Amino acid sequence: MNGIYRPLWLKDNGDLEVLDQRYLPHQELTRVLKTAADATEAISDMTVRGAGVIGNMAAFGVYLAVRESPNDMEKILEESAKLRASRPTAVNLMWAVDRMLNVVQSSSNILADAKAEAIKICNEDVKRSQKIGEIGCDIIEEIMLQRGLESFDILTHCNAGWLAIIDSGTALAPIYEAQKRGINIHVWVDETRPRNQGANLTSWELLKAGIEHTIIADNTGGHLMQHSEVDMVITGADRVTRCGDAANKIGTYLKALAAYDNNIPFYIALPLSTFDFESCDGVKEIEIEMRSEDEVHVMRGVDMNGAAQEIRITPKDAKAINYGFDVTPARLITGLITEAGLIEADEQAISRLA
Amino acid sequence: MNGIYRPLWLKDNGDLEVLDQRYLPHQELTRVLKTAADATEAISDMTVRGAGVIGNMAAFGVYLAVRESPNDMEKILEESAKLRASRPTAVNLMWAVDRMLNVVQSSSNILADAKAEAIKICNEDVKRSQKIGEIGCDIIEEIMLQRGLESFDILTHCNAGWLAIIDSGTALAPIYEAQKRGINIHVWVDETRPRNQGANLTSWELLKAGIEHTIIADNTGGHLMQHSEVDMVITGADRVTRCGDAANKIGTYLKALAAYDNNIPFYIALPLSTFDFESCDGVKEIEIEMRSEDEVHVMRGVDMNGAAQEIRITPKDAKAINYGFDVTPARLITGLITEAGLIEADEQAISRLA
Repeated sequence: MNGIYRPLWLKDNGDLEVLDQRYLPHQELTRVLKTAADATEAISDMTVRGAGVIGNMAAFGVYLAVRESPNDMEKILEESAKLRASRPTAVNLMWAVDRMLNVVQSSSNILADAKAEAIKICNEDVKRSQKIGEIGCDIIEEIMLQRGLESFDILTHCNAGWLAIIDSGTALAPIYEAQKRGINIHVWVDETRPRNQGANLTSWELLKAGIEHTIIADNTGGHLMQHSEVDMVITGADRVTRCGDAANKIGTYLKALAAYDNNIPFYIALPLSTFDFESCDGVKEIEIEMRSEDEVHVMRGVDMNGAAQEIRITPKDAKAINYGFDVTPARLITGLITEAGLIEADEQAISRLA
Repeated sequence: MNGIYRPLWLKDNGDLEVLDQRYLPHQELTRVLKTAADATEAISDMTVRGAGVIGNMAAFGVYLAVRESPNDMEKILEESAKLRASRPTAVNLMWAVDRMLNVVQSSSNILADAKAEAIKICNEDVKRSQKIGEIGCDIIEEIMLQRGLESFDILTHCNAGWLAIIDSGTALAPIYEAQKRGINIHVWVDETRPRNQGANLTSWELLKAGIEHTIIADNTGGHLMQHSEVDMVITGADRVTRCGDAANKIGTYLKALAAYDNNIPFYIALPLSTFDFESCDGVKEIEIEMRSEDEVHVMRGVDMNGAAQEIRITPKDAKAINYGFDVTPARLITGLITEAGLIEADEQAISRLA
């Protein structure tokens, strides 16, 4: 580990080192990436994941492509195209690659400028994350004041913490900020099948930070909301259209429906770079990534001796299907928490940002 | 295995043998129950589960209590009370124990009458299941006709097949009937965390029957419904109030919300014995069973050599919570498929059955 809470960092020799999120929470392993192809693979095999970090990785991926072939723009563009294709739903990925290529294609000092731009993208994310945390936490304090609450229960789905967006995430940033402000907070952590990012990553992050939380099956949130055990739902997003529809980890839509049905505020926290101004109707227009059915069949964990182990949990001949994301329609979203402030999930408000 | 599709059967020597559903789909093991205490344990540790079969087990449990102490009514009542407490949400359990005690307390040939009554309860379930299948399948054919469909996609949650209600279940009965009638049917099988009854039991049943199906994470149903991949949702129930609110496996409520939001018919299939005429507001009045958090932490399956294996899937120090059921409000339910016909999920229609 690098000692600070970052999912990736540049080594002195110019290689990129990343926390291998596939082995969390049971093992804290890192992986060194030397080439753009390594970076593409690390994104597609989910060594790294999360909207922001995928963007950071793509930026460093372009830098690695430049390092490999500083005098071959065709090769750099080719590797960049592969990076763009590594996770189809992540709009930050496209955004980061485009931004890197803008710099690279107009630079006279290509390697230094690529490195500087990738670092700049990360540093900007740190500031955004901090700002999202503050704005989100202001909302928490407002709700607590209005409702006279002594403590606050937040439900989150998947992982949008510092493993997803350096340094403190999007959905988890207001929670980290609440801890700083001394608010008595408790988090319901959706397991987030089939890859269990909630049970594996969010719970691991919150344990590290000493924030009280409880893992629940994805099925449980509706019941908790019916019984007033949830004061707010907050998730990240992988893509939000200009009309406010939000693509996020599969199952987010179901939690949004339950929040709406029980009059519980449902927020999406995202950096502005996650907006996709080209699309409006998310259900119709956003391409949803379909992943390997093995993610449904096979579960990773540790056996009773603490050794890593994979097991098959479905019948031998059964088929499965595995969509990575779903789309939550804007009508179910209370608001969008961005570094530029709280924004309504509608076309008028979002278009002002373009 | 007994050769026929039954989850439990009486042996010639008067012991009860049951299919141990905890080892499905990876191992087909049976367990012999000799005492009422064995039966209570088999219900509470989920060797057997499912609304109907729990009732059958409770009936045979009373019979086993009678067999142990035919001349000690106090002991029989004591064992019956333990049976009643073995799964708090299952109304069939209470119903079956009461019915058995009625017979036992007025009988002059207590052992033979207890045995006959338990068998009668099972045989009645077989007929009910058949009837529910026919009525449910009539609805499928009606929808297909109205919408001009050549094939039909049903989503189901948890397991309400013959492992839950002999001989063909409740929610799965119309699917088995559709197969008999030659309808081109495909089933979306919700995994049903944390115990994976869908991935383990429903998929196993459908594989045995040769019915086309696909396992999905519980998070996936909303997305499929948004994209018109689901023509009907059908589940069983553990308890339905006289006002039509339905307690069923945790997560059912979320699927009902998504079906409602996408204008997809949502049916509950249940025998009349599942109605609880005493309660109305299910969310407020139905006691929801809380089960061990280990069911969230620990996953059971087979390793790559096919050997049974348990793994921990959450961080070592993480906490979890595990509610077994949630309540779907009547307003989200298109109709209740019972052996007495299709009934609206409202107080007026249901009260007529009391």
